[in-house]
Amino acid sequence: MSEYIEHDPGGVSVGLVEKRFFSFAEPPVELVLESGAGLGQITLAYETYGRLDEDRSNAVLICHALSGDSHAAGYYSGDDAKPGWWDIMVGPGKGIDTDRYFVVCSNVLGSCLGSTGPCSIDPRTDEPYGLGFPVVTIGDMVEAQRALLDHLGVDRVLSVVGGSIGGMQALEWTVRFPEKVVSAIPLATTTRHSALAIAFNEVARQAIMADPDWNQGDYYRRSRPDHGLAVARMIGHITYLSDEAMRLKFGRRLQDKGDFSFNFDADFQVESYLRHQGQKFVERFDANSFLYITKAADYYDLERRWGGGSAVEAFSRAGAAFLVVSFTSDWLYPTYQSRALVQAVKKNGLDVSFVEIEAECGHDAFLLPNERLSRLIRSFLGRMHDQVPRNGRHAF
Amino acid sequence: MSEYIEHDPGGVSVGLVEKRFFSFAEPPVELVLESGAGLGQITLAYETYGRLDEDRSNAVLICHALSGDSHAAGYYSGDDAKPGWWDIMVGPGKGIDTDRYFVVCSNVLGSCLGSTGPCSIDPRTDEPYGLGFPVVTIGDMVEAQRALLDHLGVDRVLSVVGGSIGGMQALEWTVRFPEKVVSAIPLATTTRHSALAIAFNEVARQAIMADPDWNQGDYYRRSRPDHGLAVARMIGHITYLSDEAMRLKFGRRLQDKGDFSFNFDADFQVESYLRHQGQKFVERFDANSFLYITKAADYYDLERRWGGGSAVEAFSRAGAAFLVVSFTSDWLYPTYQSRALVQAVKKNGLDVSFVEIEAECGHDAFLLPNERLSRLIRSFLGRMHDQVPRNGRHAF
Repeated sequence: MSEYIEHDPGGVSVGLVEKRFFSFAEPPVELVLESGAGLGQITLAYETYGRLDEDRSNAVLICHALSGDSHAAGYYSGDDAKPGWWDIMVGPGKGIDTDRYFVVCSNVLGSCLGSTGPCSIDPRTDEPYGLGFPVVTIGDMVEAQRALLDHLGVDRVLSVVGGSIGGMQALEWTVRFPEKVVSAIPLATTTRHSALAIAFNEVARQAIMADPDWNQGDYYRRSRPDHGLAVARMIGHITYLSDEAMRLKFGRRLQDKGDFSFNFDADFQVESYLRHQGQKFVERFDANSFLYITKAADYYDLERRWGGGSAVEAFSRAGAAFLVVSFTSDWLYPTYQSRALVQAVKKNGLDVSFVEIEAECGHDAFLLPNERLSRLIRSFLGRMHDQVPRNGRHAF
Repeated sequence: MSEYIEHDPGGVSVGLVEKRFFSFAEPPVELVLESGAGLGQITLAYETYGRLDEDRSNAVLICHALSGDSHAAGYYSGDDAKPGWWDIMVGPGKGIDTDRYFVVCSNVLGSCLGSTGPCSIDPRTDEPYGLGFPVVTIGDMVEAQRALLDHLGVDRVLSVVGGSIGGMQALEWTVRFPEKVVSAIPLATTTRHSALAIAFNEVARQAIMADPDWNQGDYYRRSRPDHGLAVARMIGHITYLSDEAMRLKFGRRLQDKGDFSFNFDADFQVESYLRHQGQKFVERFDANSFLYITKAADYYDLERRWGGGSAVEAFSRAGAAFLVVSFTSDWLYPTYQSRALVQAVKKNGLDVSFVEIEAECGHDAFLLPNERLSRLIRSFLGRMHDQVPRNGRHAF
């Protein structure tokens, strides 16, 4: 059975937080991307919660998924209706305990929520990049995160935690910067995007690119491709749920009517829900960023990049401990993909824990309140922290 | 294991066939639809293969799925590159043996492939109906089929056979016209569209309606919403396959390139496949018909319409024998939905056979060569035919 708990209304939040910005790769320096293209200047929006220990051994990096941002926890002001996107997990006494850890969350490279992305101004033209923005990879996002951690004085993180595309970043950290990662917690993720996951992303991209307002990505000074982006988001939302989740959440219930309308209005609750999600999304997200981040996810292939096609070979670079979590009803990144990853890590003799959590809510499960997940992460982080040598010696 | 066989190149086809047309509900007569709206005149495109016995006891009605048509088997001319859509199943000596049965297949009401639908001319305006076409249901499609069978002199069919939306029509026949159906063979289908299935259809419809060329359905004398329809079809094609099918068929193989393009071209074979399917579809299908037929599928709810919400109650009307077939990898209409239908039929003491076929190809399995499926249908139809009283007496 699932172990959902309501978000404890009395739960302690990390409180007021602030979005900060860090810039690097200032001209004439550029970050050389995996594609070979150069990019600079780069800005990352980020937030931190908790305090970095004197021996700098308690940093936890949180990596967000497709539409997330740096605002993982807390409130920007007392008027905020909602806290950050993972406030149920991140805060004093929570799964990722801000009383114990120095938590960092940054908006990914390519996004539109504070970090440099296709809607940023291209310094060469003084116009928004649009499609002039280079295609970035999960590896490039991780390179940018590393620059941020350097800036924050964190030479080695206790853990990199993330779900979905955030989980890919966590995995990438373990093989790209093995000496900088004590542990990783990849949730509801995969080492390589499946054909099915690519298919969904591609159709979503086609929905955007089919919108005449998309205009080859050049729309920042005109009307935006809201119709296409809304359809793309609707496709995404189907993949985040599951047959069972939809049956329980919506079934065939009608939306504010007793009978079918016999026209093309939204008759069913599930239709209203999807339309609403599509509409909400266009108010806060950039269509080009959607293209770039989904492409990064599709390109992600840890085996290919680091192991000549072999996951075992790829993880032979890693030295981290792993806590891998999958969810029974996640059909975007089904459990068999997590198992394959766990096997590859195990074959390298690494410390790996794997838990498949019973959940009926599909891929989204990692974002929802789940007492078991909170306990797992809390206990794993505690064990990692107890093991780290102190006194500023990081040769773990 | 799946039991695919290659389409036997030496297999005997039903040969040259002809598309015919039947019209009814001539003004001032109208067919009163489930919505309460009236529709007339109605034309159905249909084909027949084999000969009707003297006692008219050997008619088999084939109902097609969303994008199918009346051309189930054979060739229109010797130059045709391909036979009808179910030629592997329908022909001399095949699963549905045209040497033994009189096979009828008609294009559904609301389609664009010969039968009356939104692209037909509205006699009241002399313009294409567009959104002026009334929303039709699976029940309405079946009513039109009944008019055609009356016209062909078939008072009672030996079997109604169909997959997907065609399976819904087969089920509907058993409760709407119980005295006219000896048996039904619903394949890869359901008694009511799930929230997940509705969700996919709704997003596909939104993709069409987001295309400015759709123009509220009024596009027949201008450019058509090809972009939206292509995206809609791509969404459909994802649902027709499965995670496993896509992994086997495409994996992460690149399309005609050795490395990523680092742009938004189709890098992966699965992307090329979907784009190709989308493009092919717009050449032969009408966007409004897509809206109408998917809406009919979403509205389909045998329990609600005939049983006050109870499938057992709904099938208490039926007297037919059933052969129900599901496919292991079909996640659009998963096996549990077929099982529920079988239970409801069983509780009414009816003759029901149920087979779940191991297949890795997803929902599309019912359309693909499968020796086991052919044998099952052939043997079931033979048993049904042996049981039917002859000498023109139809009181079975």
